[in-house]
Amino acid sequence: MSATLDVLALPREAQDLLFREARTASVFTAEPVTDDQLRAVHDLVKWGPTGVNSQPLRVVYLRGEQARARLLPHMNEGNRDKTAKAPLTAILASDADFHEHLPRTFPVVPGIRDAFAANPDRAEVAKVSALLQAGYFIIGVRAAGLAAGPMAGFDAEGVRREFFEGTARTPLVVVNIGHPDPERYYPRNPRLDFDEVATVL
Amino acid sequence: MSATLDVLALPREAQDLLFREARTASVFTAEPVTDDQLRAVHDLVKWGPTGVNSQPLRVVYLRGEQARARLLPHMNEGNRDKTAKAPLTAILASDADFHEHLPRTFPVVPGIRDAFAANPDRAEVAKVSALLQAGYFIIGVRAAGLAAGPMAGFDAEGVRREFFEGTARTPLVVVNIGHPDPERYYPRNPRLDFDEVATVL
Repeated sequence: MSATLDVLALPREAQDLLFREARTASVFTAEPVTDDQLRAVHDLVKWGPTGVNSQPLRVVYLRGEQARARLLPHMNEGNRDKTAKAPLTAILASDADFHEHLPRTFPVVPGIRDAFAANPDRAEVAKVSALLQAGYFIIGVRAAGLAAGPMAGFDAEGVRREFFEGTARTPLVVVNIGHPDPERYYPRNPRLDFDEVATVL
Repeated sequence: MSATLDVLALPREAQDLLFREARTASVFTAEPVTDDQLRAVHDLVKWGPTGVNSQPLRVVYLRGEQARARLLPHMNEGNRDKTAKAPLTAILASDADFHEHLPRTFPVVPGIRDAFAANPDRAEVAKVSALLQAGYFIIGVRAAGLAAGPMAGFDAEGVRREFFEGTARTPLVVVNIGHPDPERYYPRNPRLDFDEVATVL
């Protein structure tokens, strides 16, 4: 294990912050998450690659009591209490209308906006890159010294209607964000080994 | 911009390595990617969170001439030449049979394997977490000091038949990996601002 650590260019402290010691959090301290932190996370992870630089991830941050009350009924029961108590909750969604930005974000192919406007698989294309970005986002939250608690257990159609009606946006993942209470982590679950998930041909 | 850098806990050099100065690469040097590097990337990014710790990402690494020849006909023409010349190419796939590992990887809910065995949305559930893991994987490649060139432009059904027939695996993204030739980067495309993608409620 320690042999493989030295193979990486990323310093060990950064490895620990982002992956090895970072944990999914369900319980947070009362310390708030600031708008400066949200902007810093964005300014970092926006550089992660997406298909044709499409950047389809959209984020709705719920901080206020009233905003959160709109989300809670759509969360699975097991996710409701921790979502109610987190300092901040982010709804990560993909935008099937990402192509409207392409003339500015991918100018190298001039006709690409119109090609995607006619593409029936556009929502699926958006979902793939938005989920890559969701991965970068979770790493970015940890880069800010915060903990993320990502959840897939919610009524996606209910969240869509509540927050995204009239748009081409679809919610993918809901993430609680805050300063973790390390004494309240669950035991860490085992990971699959390299040889269980990888084949070298 | 520099104000937001200081908000993050991750040191600036690590921010640069993983996001700010990391670039999508199309052209690589002849320097090979070692098995030690692949294992080190796995040992880092395996800690990234997935739904019910499902870890559905599967990776086929193509290093040999013969293995690569099986992939090239399925790549879009614009991706074929760079894929032929990269030192290593990874096919990232999701495994809809991830639930077989759950008794070991998520022992906290004893009946969860059987619940997923009966779930018709299992492939879609796998895809969501596998794409989060694909995001972690791309960051992990950069953490190894390598560059990634992720591509969505390929015939997914052709790749599935060629590499995954008889399994529940579906290819999602193909990633060229190697030591980049910084003189051969394309100009960087613009990113969307915080206020274009985020709403704080």
